[in-house]
Amino acid sequence: MYAVIMAGGVGTRFWPRSRHLRPKQLLSLSGSSSMIRLTIERLKPLLGPERILVVTRADQLSALRAELPEIPDSNILVEPTGKNTAPCIALAAAVLEARGGADEAMLVLPADHLIRREEDFRATVAACENLLAHHDHLITLGVTPHRPETGYGYIRRGSVATCVQGREFHTVERFLEKPDLPTARSLVQDGRHLWNSGMFAWRTSRIVEELRRHIPDLEPGLASLRQAYGTPDWGRTLNSAYQAFPKISIDYGVMERAEDVWVTEVDIGWSDVGSWASLAELRAQDAQGNVLPDDALAIDARDNFVDGRERVVVLLGVQDLIVVDTEDALLVCHRDRAQEVGSIPEQLRRRGRKNLT
Amino acid sequence: MYAVIMAGGVGTRFWPRSRHLRPKQLLSLSGSSSMIRLTIERLKPLLGPERILVVTRADQLSALRAELPEIPDSNILVEPTGKNTAPCIALAAAVLEARGGADEAMLVLPADHLIRREEDFRATVAACENLLAHHDHLITLGVTPHRPETGYGYIRRGSVATCVQGREFHTVERFLEKPDLPTARSLVQDGRHLWNSGMFAWRTSRIVEELRRHIPDLEPGLASLRQAYGTPDWGRTLNSAYQAFPKISIDYGVMERAEDVWVTEVDIGWSDVGSWASLAELRAQDAQGNVLPDDALAIDARDNFVDGRERVVVLLGVQDLIVVDTEDALLVCHRDRAQEVGSIPEQLRRRGRKNLT
Repeated sequence: MYAVIMAGGVGTRFWPRSRHLRPKQLLSLSGSSSMIRLTIERLKPLLGPERILVVTRADQLSALRAELPEIPDSNILVEPTGKNTAPCIALAAAVLEARGGADEAMLVLPADHLIRREEDFRATVAACENLLAHHDHLITLGVTPHRPETGYGYIRRGSVATCVQGREFHTVERFLEKPDLPTARSLVQDGRHLWNSGMFAWRTSRIVEELRRHIPDLEPGLASLRQAYGTPDWGRTLNSAYQAFPKISIDYGVMERAEDVWVTEVDIGWSDVGSWASLAELRAQDAQGNVLPDDALAIDARDNFVDGRERVVVLLGVQDLIVVDTEDALLVCHRDRAQEVGSIPEQLRRRGRKNLT
Repeated sequence: MYAVIMAGGVGTRFWPRSRHLRPKQLLSLSGSSSMIRLTIERLKPLLGPERILVVTRADQLSALRAELPEIPDSNILVEPTGKNTAPCIALAAAVLEARGGADEAMLVLPADHLIRREEDFRATVAACENLLAHHDHLITLGVTPHRPETGYGYIRRGSVATCVQGREFHTVERFLEKPDLPTARSLVQDGRHLWNSGMFAWRTSRIVEELRRHIPDLEPGLASLRQAYGTPDWGRTLNSAYQAFPKISIDYGVMERAEDVWVTEVDIGWSDVGSWASLAELRAQDAQGNVLPDDALAIDARDNFVDGRERVVVLLGVQDLIVVDTEDALLVCHRDRAQEVGSIPEQLRRRGRKNLT
């Protein structure tokens, strides 16, 4: 089995901690290690580094190499430009095919998600690999929803299709876009819906076939990439292939249209850590609901989140704030507006402050 | 005439900008100059620096000397310890007496107040000096109240006592402590009440006499100070005098008890700039009621005050906040709690963070 880690995002919702050259997956948001380092370490008991491919962007390459010295250079694939997840997965699949791995299982993971119960995660991955030895299906990991989250897509599962190592795999009835709150409440209550985690497993040959069928615009580029792999033409071919690739997600482009999609339910302490507010929920709160650095002082303040290592932060009489203090920029944001943080870098660029993005 | 500038405070309500060794009067809160520099410059058309006495604390002496190089060293008086305004004024009066200035007029000013209409202020001071050439009264400057402020004391004026240079001086019926809001509203409405600005004018001999009468505990120390002035015993005498001095304000100790107190009304754009919230009211606000540094970015944020020069500040979806960003400490405070900022240094000291106070 190969693991393909998608590491091309920026994570602008973590501004000012995240920057163009210091994307979310390189931040230590939930402890002492970066998100991508945690993702790699989580896989190590299953896979050696030569079996891990990382897809990233040219401008993040050097930071990524420094963070992941054990991953061979040839396993770090560089997208000329971000085109969402379908081209990213297609690129990795083309490379694996060119290397002779068409029949092998391919596990696809985002680089910047959090999983607290790692043993359960690995047991699931092992079961997927076992299943793919016998079944040529598209497997998606669906997370047990513990709250009516409106920030995630949902998967409606059907009947049990098979059982591997004590783990059920269900047919998929439908993929649902991010719902509104009343819809999310009913989805969580009916017990048939799972969060779409963006983690997938399939045989390389099968996803290539599905990409060809559902996103035919990818095929000419992929054919040229298979040809050019390992030759001096690779860079030029990659650039022209990406220019022609459509921007499309694997969910919309393939998963929602394909036959033979199965889902397995996981309850592994997963979070996509989509914003400062969701990070705040993951961290230990004090009796007043605050998440603070050790040396902060909170006076009659509650439900605040402070991320700051630069200086002592004192809160007085405030609530529901997100305060992120970095060397050159300070964010003070209402907790309910954490999603909008993602728009700040663009606004700063328009004001000529690209250096802060 | 001599001016005595009381510059012994810390101004903890301006933490984290104000520190033990960088008190409020040395901060540039309302522009490019420090509060005490503005106070001195405001007097210069009336008085040379040799006529200006500054009373400060030992630990602020070197910073003050650096800020006011034109004031002769002998005009900077150092209190061994802060004992409120009555001992401070008594010390200055004793020094002026010892220098042979008992019959001269003495203007007393806080070092950290703001006056926007300086010409009107100087015209008032000139009228006071003129009056004191003929009348041996205690003059206090009462500010026209433009809002029902609960943070100031009030003075109820009586009938017109005299008129000098077109300026009325009224008898004082009563000094009132800081009122509650309904009381403040009625005080402002009745047209007979003025804000107690803490600015006074009198003959040196008269205030010495009043101090002796109303705060007899001051007298032994003052007698020894008059004796020791200009001798090598000065330092030792000053220390032992201050040990015996009671902690008492000139308002409570003298003004509220003395006969022959007159008040003259001034409308000079005065503020004691008592907190970040009151500073916020003095500064120009944008259309959303924010007071921000030029490079700050406010997104759907209103009625916030940001003081920061260290880094770019971005506000998102917040209101009524005071954000003060310094090199080693950051304050985020609700606007209505600005008075409580004064307690932060003590709380930090208790946590072993004296370096931040």
